[in-house]
Parts: sequence; C-alpha cells; structure tokens
Amino acid sequence: MKLELKDLHDLARGAAFLGTGGGGDPYIGRLLLQQEMAVGRMPNIVDIDTIDDDALVAPVASMGAPTVMVERFPKIASIEKALKVLEKRLGRKLDALICAEAGGINGTLPLIASARTGLPIIDADGMGRAFPELQMMTFNIYGCSASPVVLVDDYGHSFIVDTEGDNKRAEQYARAAVIAMRGIAQIALFPMTGAQVKKAAIRGSVSFAFDIGRAIGAAHRDRRDPVEALLDYIRARGDRRFCKVLFTGKIVDLVRETRGGFAFGRAVLEGTGKQSGRCEVDFQNENLVARHDGRIVAMVPDLISVVDAETAEPITTEGLKYGQRVKAIGVSVPPVMRTPEALAVFGPRAFGYGVDFVPLEAIQ
Amino acid sequence: MKLELKDLHDLARGAAFLGTGGGGDPYIGRLLLQQEMAVGRMPNIVDIDTIDDDALVAPVASMGAPTVMVERFPKIASIEKALKVLEKRLGRKLDALICAEAGGINGTLPLIASARTGLPIIDADGMGRAFPELQMMTFNIYGCSASPVVLVDDYGHSFIVDTEGDNKRAEQYARAAVIAMRGIAQIALFPMTGAQVKKAAIRGSVSFAFDIGRAIGAAHRDRRDPVEALLDYIRARGDRRFCKVLFTGKIVDLVRETRGGFAFGRAVLEGTGKQSGRCEVDFQNENLVARHDGRIVAMVPDLISVVDAETAEPITTEGLKYGQRVKAIGVSVPPVMRTPEALAVFGPRAFGYGVDFVPLEAIQ
Repeated sequence: MKLELKDLHDLARGAAFLGTGGGGDPYIGRLLLQQEMAVGRMPNIVDIDTIDDDALVAPVASMGAPTVMVERFPKIASIEKALKVLEKRLGRKLDALICAEAGGINGTLPLIASARTGLPIIDADGMGRAFPELQMMTFNIYGCSASPVVLVDDYGHSFIVDTEGDNKRAEQYARAAVIAMRGIAQIALFPMTGAQVKKAAIRGSVSFAFDIGRAIGAAHRDRRDPVEALLDYIRARGDRRFCKVLFTGKIVDLVRETRGGFAFGRAVLEGTGKQSGRCEVDFQNENLVARHDGRIVAMVPDLISVVDAETAEPITTEGLKYGQRVKAIGVSVPPVMRTPEALAVFGPRAFGYGVDFVPLEAIQ
Repeated sequence: MKLELKDLHDLARGAAFLGTGGGGDPYIGRLLLQQEMAVGRMPNIVDIDTIDDDALVAPVASMGAPTVMVERFPKIASIEKALKVLEKRLGRKLDALICAEAGGINGTLPLIASARTGLPIIDADGMGRAFPELQMMTFNIYGCSASPVVLVDDYGHSFIVDTEGDNKRAEQYARAAVIAMRGIAQIALFPMTGAQVKKAAIRGSVSFAFDIGRAIGAAHRDRRDPVEALLDYIRARGDRRFCKVLFTGKIVDLVRETRGGFAFGRAVLEGTGKQSGRCEVDFQNENLVARHDGRIVAMVPDLISVVDAETAEPITTEGLKYGQRVKAIGVSVPPVMRTPEALAVFGPRAFGYGVDFVPLEAIQ
C-alpha cells in the first residue's frame, strides 16, 4: 500500500472513525505525518504476509487520555527513543512495526515511526479500532505478552514495565507511569514474532481506515450524502460487516471528566427530523455503549462512531460539543473480536456493564 | 565487621534510632535477617576502603510508606530479583552492595541481600540516617545518577525508571511505580563505581547503627539510664557529634495520614516531670522538625529521634501512640551533610519549611 501526501486527509478521517471517539485527535497525527512526508520520509506500509515468521515486530503508540493529547502532542523523538530502548532491552533490532490500534492518532503515529526509522509498518493492528486499555488487544487475547512495555516521556526519560505474562497488570503499571508522566507517553510493547503477529493481528486495519476516509471524501466531491456513501462502502466490502445509523440528533448534554489517566463521560443526543427520543453514548476514551430511550442499541466491541450529520466527519469524544448535529453509527466487528476470550477482555462486562454482549445485527 | 545472631537486636535498635522515625519498622528487618543467619547465610560487611575503584556497587532498599510496610513485609525474592534486573540492564555483575539509608528496615535489608547473594555489603550509606525521598542521598548530591532505578513488586514484576541524570524526576517516577505496586517495592538503583562510592558515601553507618544499639543494650544490662548512656556514647565517639535531649514528655496528640506514597503527620508532646511546655514533631516518613512551644529546636538533616523515656527504644513514626512517655533526642550530622549542596537537597527548605538550616548545636 502506497500512501501519498494527498491521501492523508482520508487516512486520518478513517482512523478517527475507527477510533470510535477515542485514540486521540487524528488531526494532530495527520499534521505530524504530513511533516515527515513533505520532506520525503515516507512510511513503508506492507502486507502482513510479507513478514518472516521469525521477524521481530512491535506495536508503537501514544498512551494517555485524549483530553491531554489535545494540548500535548506526541513527541516524535520520544517515539524513536521508545523503539531504541525496546531494542536495547531485547538485545535485537526490530524488523517491523505494527499499529497497536488503528483508531485515532494511533492509526497514523506508527506510520510516522516507519517514516523516521525506515522500518516497514504492517497493514494490521491489535484492535481493529481503538480501546482505552493496553490489554484490550488481540495480541493479548491470543497469547502474546505485553512486557516489556517501554514508556518514554517528552524529555526522553523512560520506564520499562515487565509483568511477564500478566498483561492486565502491565496496563495498571503502565497507566501509573503515564499519569506520572503527566498524562501522555510514547510506548513500544508486545514484542512478537512474525508468526505470532500473523496469528493474532486484525489484518488490513490501516487500509480499512484509509478506505473509510476515502469513501467519505469521495461523497463530498460527488455531492452524495456522505453517511449513506460510508454505509454503502462498508456493506460492499465483502467481509460481511453489518452497519447502520443508530441515531440522528443533536447533542443536548455532555458530562466529561479526566480521571485515572482516562477521559470518562457521556453524551446525550435528542432526536432531530424524523428521529424520536433520546440517545445516550457512554465513553471511556472510546464510545462504549449507545442507548436509545434507555435501551442498549450498540455495545463494545462493536464500533459506535459519532459523526457530523452533514459531512460524516468523525467526532472524537473530546471534540463533542453542545448543539452539534450528529449521527451515531454502529459497525460490527469481525468474528475474531467476538469470541468468548475476546469478549472477556473488551466486551461490555470488561467495562463494568452488567450485560452480555449482543451483536449489533441482532438488536432490533 | 563481623555480625552474629546475638547482635541483631542491637543493630536493629540502632538502625531504628538513625531512622529518626522512618525507614520502616526495624523489627521486621531483624526477623528477616535472623531467618537468613539462622540457616548460616551470613552478611559479609566490609570496609569501604576494601572496594576497588572500578568495582560496580549499588544500593538496595525497600521503598514505600512505613505504614504500608508494617502490613506488607519486604519480599526477599523481590530484593534478589531487583539486583538481577539491574545487573541484566547494566550488562555486568555487581561487585558489592551498599545501604541506601542506614535507618530503619533499610539498615538491615541490604545485609539480607548480602547474605542471600554472597556479595559484600559496604559499611556505609547514602544518608547517614533515613530520608523519605530517593534523591535525598549523598550519592545524588555528589554527582551520581540514580538511573536506572529498578523496582520489583511482591510478584516479581519490575519497573525500570531511567531519567538519566535527573534524580528528582527519578524519585517522582519511582514513587508513582511504588504507589501502583500498592505502596511498597524492593529497589536497586544508583549504580556506582567504587571510586564514586568512596567519594559520596557516609562512611561507617552500619557500624554506627550497631554501636548505638549496643550502647543502649549495654545500659539495660548495667541498669544505667539508657538515654544518658546513649548520649555519652555519641559524645565519646570522637567524630564531634553534638547531641542532646530536646524534650521529655508524653504524646497527647497525633495526626497521621498516608498520602502520595508517604506517611505524613505530627506528634504533639506535653512536658512531664521537670519538662515544661509542649513539643511538636513533624514527620514525612521521618521526623523533620521539632518545635518547643512553637520555636524550632531541631531540624533536618540533623537527627530527631523519639525514644521510649525509660528504655530508650526508638519509636518509628507509625509506632507512635497516644500516651507514650518519650524523649525526643537531637543528634548533629557530619559536615558533609550540611554543605549548601546537601542542604539544598535535604535541608528544611527541601521539605517546604520557610527557614534556613540552623545547626542543632547553635540553637539555644
């Protein structure tokens, strides 16, 4: 997959959609990537099957509350430092990078790391979207160890967390480090072999993000309804994803707080046009559950993205504002993200909801 | 210096005195060391001048609030793991250990590490007492880097903090790790050469602790007043330390809270016998400042130790209780701990007091 400067708008927009409200502001990620590409440092995006089974691969990401990231951009030098510290710890050079999550800023940040280091970046990720916690990755679900987790602050100071196979504790300890670093860190973690990555990763996430963004962009140029165009594109993909508009309305209430290193909150929408009733969207960095008049209409790990009602531009949770006219869109995730093991890690109960997962397509 | 099982009471008692209320409960440290020595694993305490200039030396300690340590004892396996992780990180075996602080549990813990690993433990430390924060060491003041700081939890999970030369930040980050580890970690840090240690360490701290404890113990056997015996011993040492009883009274009020990984508080004493007035002792893990009727009578870095009025057994801040009959004793520290550089790091202003340091012997 070859990326050009003119593609960056589409890629960032698609990453924001997959971010389901979280994963950090993709606008910042776009600007940072644009800076690299403008001086000829291009990301080398490769298919997962080009990677040797014994290659050393690591995800790279920004970790922290999106509300903090808006004010403190990811430091590129710290991303590079995180990779160097990881290589030193492992006593081996990395052969390739991969996205930790395809959503939000973390959909573009690994591309910047690729552009800077010359390492290939695999068109895949560990979530197929964005999630707030680092154990919420398919890499964890399918048997890989998050440790050592390297975190680097804006000044190049580093933490290495090693909890061996205990990835939930790795999240706890890494989160404490992020908070100590005042809310944001650049991280490299989950060192894996090529064989492990092929087994555990969600394939094609970067190109999926790009294609989503492109579908919306094309609709703008063709003067089609961009939300309709987006749903048509997803339905036509052939990977049998289900999608629909969950609610159309305007934001009438917002609760938001940054706590424990996360942005928690809830957006309340009131129906506009033919839409009746109210819709509530809960989030912890990412949108978790959408309720229509109190009844759940979509839930994690299925995607719940809030977009501008006219332009279909995705709105991150920290960008939600009173009065915005929006549509909440639900998209199903692949079967690999709905297994019992996967739901135990990022299903509704993992976020404290007392309900079992019901697939989007099964909810009336 | 050769230590026998029968010496452990004296050593732990002296370490508690040098702990000036902090450094963790020495009773626990004694029991743990006793366990090792009872099965023939002896600490190898050596003089600082036996260490080669190019030897690799590291302090080892427990880090956390003493109030937490009372309930969760230091895990010996985690101490050994911390040393192993440090060696792996440095790519070199350690040649010797040294006490981070001679006070409290950290006066005996490094001896346990010596007994377990066979590494010599140097009769010296980085404080000549106990202090609450890791940059409050002569190693920091005289140019050594705390990083990498290795922290290990009870389960063997590790953090490595690397802030290069920024030792204050190393404290901040390591403290965040300790809190995430629920209040206690076993740490190895400040890797130094033998030459650096000889320049920066406070010499003879372990034997000083032992001698203090022995002076009190001997008074018990000889039925002398143990507080008088202790003061006599310190005055007779020949290193020109000044010491005196600051106040004699009973504890009539106690404020205590565990916050940010520290035990903060204040003890209020009311004079008994010929002693008039009131005395307040502030602490942050360790006793920081003593006031008699509002006027400061002793302050960090000089030692302020609260001991039982009859037995002279030192009382740690978490052991203070309403109604205890106590004496507060002040002891001056060596000149190397009163230089402007040293006072900048652990003088009264470093603890938020708006006063300059006045030596104990200069206060009327």
